[in-house]
Amino acid sequence: MYRPEIKVLDCTIRDGGLMNNWDFSMDVVKKVYRALWAAGVDYMEIGYRHDTVQHDVTKSGIWRFCPEEVIREVIHGVAEVPGKERPKISVMADIGKSVESDFLPKAESVVDMVRVATYDKQADKAVAFAKHCRALGYEVSINLMAISHCTEFEMHEALEAFKEAPVSVVVVVDSFGALYSEQVAYLVQKYQKYFTGKSIEVGIHMHNNQQLAFANTIEGIIRGANRLDGTLYGMGRAAGNCPTELLLSFLKNPKFDVRPLLDVISEVFIPLREKVEWGYLIPHMITGVLDEHPRAALAWLKKPERNEFGKFYQLLLEGVPIA
Amino acid sequence: MYRPEIKVLDCTIRDGGLMNNWDFSMDVVKKVYRALWAAGVDYMEIGYRHDTVQHDVTKSGIWRFCPEEVIREVIHGVAEVPGKERPKISVMADIGKSVESDFLPKAESVVDMVRVATYDKQADKAVAFAKHCRALGYEVSINLMAISHCTEFEMHEALEAFKEAPVSVVVVVDSFGALYSEQVAYLVQKYQKYFTGKSIEVGIHMHNNQQLAFANTIEGIIRGANRLDGTLYGMGRAAGNCPTELLLSFLKNPKFDVRPLLDVISEVFIPLREKVEWGYLIPHMITGVLDEHPRAALAWLKKPERNEFGKFYQLLLEGVPIA
Repeated sequence: MYRPEIKVLDCTIRDGGLMNNWDFSMDVVKKVYRALWAAGVDYMEIGYRHDTVQHDVTKSGIWRFCPEEVIREVIHGVAEVPGKERPKISVMADIGKSVESDFLPKAESVVDMVRVATYDKQADKAVAFAKHCRALGYEVSINLMAISHCTEFEMHEALEAFKEAPVSVVVVVDSFGALYSEQVAYLVQKYQKYFTGKSIEVGIHMHNNQQLAFANTIEGIIRGANRLDGTLYGMGRAAGNCPTELLLSFLKNPKFDVRPLLDVISEVFIPLREKVEWGYLIPHMITGVLDEHPRAALAWLKKPERNEFGKFYQLLLEGVPIA
Repeated sequence: MYRPEIKVLDCTIRDGGLMNNWDFSMDVVKKVYRALWAAGVDYMEIGYRHDTVQHDVTKSGIWRFCPEEVIREVIHGVAEVPGKERPKISVMADIGKSVESDFLPKAESVVDMVRVATYDKQADKAVAFAKHCRALGYEVSINLMAISHCTEFEMHEALEAFKEAPVSVVVVVDSFGALYSEQVAYLVQKYQKYFTGKSIEVGIHMHNNQQLAFANTIEGIIRGANRLDGTLYGMGRAAGNCPTELLLSFLKNPKFDVRPLLDVISEVFIPLREKVEWGYLIPHMITGVLDEHPRAALAWLKKPERNEFGKFYQLLLEGVPIA
């Protein structure tokens, strides 16, 4: 018996974009949108909306900025899937990298949801940003990043702030791919306690450094998380994310159909993986095990000694910066 | 606080050999043995002992047969690791493919453990084989394969037989990579009930079709399984196994050290993966999701249309044999 409250968000273009500088063609993004639609996926996160004043728009693909007219071009150029609801569109705002004035009133936008990504230190800024977006008419989520680096006290402060925010979701984010199932269970249950009596769902966004992204997402489901993030073929930062194709094969809601995802993986992501390297690489496994930021492994993989894993492990243990 | 009863068995050469027809050089097997020793791994499964009458010895590498003198050559040719116990040596016997007369008395052998692999239908044959090996002086394990295809009644019959066997371990084997964590929890707890009051530990051997091999091994640990199988860089049949490097990073027993494993992965398994294909390939994911034997995916991957995943999925759904 499936749980109808469960909703799946695919963030391939947004999180995967961190690996190819958002260099996806309009055609690829349309194919992903059509596949997610046919598969019954609830949300497509189509990119970030980073500030174009702070960030040079000529240096990254358009999906880092997601101007309204570009999103319109995606969703208006795709043939309808009969009998299925189209995926809602999400964009991610980053505290410190996005500005409130870049968001139109919802009535003038094809965006459905804004997900506000924040570290615990910026929790109050995130709540203010969320209030602004909610007042514009969007569904809003807050994604509390790098939770494996938060003390209990820091987490408490952030969750206290979020419980007064006009959001429908707060997401447990394992940015470093460091969490084990018992920790995920603990966090999901803890978040839920803060939101008792409120219509705030707990979400889950896992990274795959230890091959635990899918398993930890299942653990989240068992503990009551109803908003699940995945990416196609796991494409995402460093080791990547919970593969959406695994998630849809696991979920029992009859509206889901994994086959359109298999087709777009065949056509787009298998060839892309030949050029862009994400997934279970040992340096990513090592940062996951040591609960370190993925940037160390990403830097190491650019070096000629990239496959000297014992050396990389030792340098990290000794706190030597890898650049 | 770690659980001292937990023991790790690395079966890279045995299960990985299914992918390269056991074509490992003596030098590679010595390097693996030395690395497992330095890492504190408890057992090394060095291969199968398949019958040389039924199977043509010129058609597979020697690790499919593991004659006594070849194992001796491995363990006598390796420099001692000071302060650590050497890994015990395990060979696997397959009911129907191995014969009792191929086993010397333990006093004349460097093998420590015989693992008897069986399907539920051959449970009584497995018990007879186990009795023979135990009488010779070996530690004995029974590995009940393809558990995801057993009915409750079939499993009951097999476990009833095993509880009278002179074995120290019975292993839950997810041959098809089809199990989710809740099923693993159920099975481990069920096995334990049959062995209450006996000195039989429950073991766990997972396949990685759904990226759940490590997570399911952790679930097994949580439920009380004390014998854990892994392989280096996950090398094993089809999608492979629980990566031993992840397992050792997770376990807290101070005797474990992941670094020697990282080094042998760098030196041996990264180059080997360029030639031999194991791991998360979508056809393997599909057989896992559908709880099918890996042979369909292995055959599909040899075809020119190997990356037409939607087609493969559809053929399996329709029951079309893939050859």
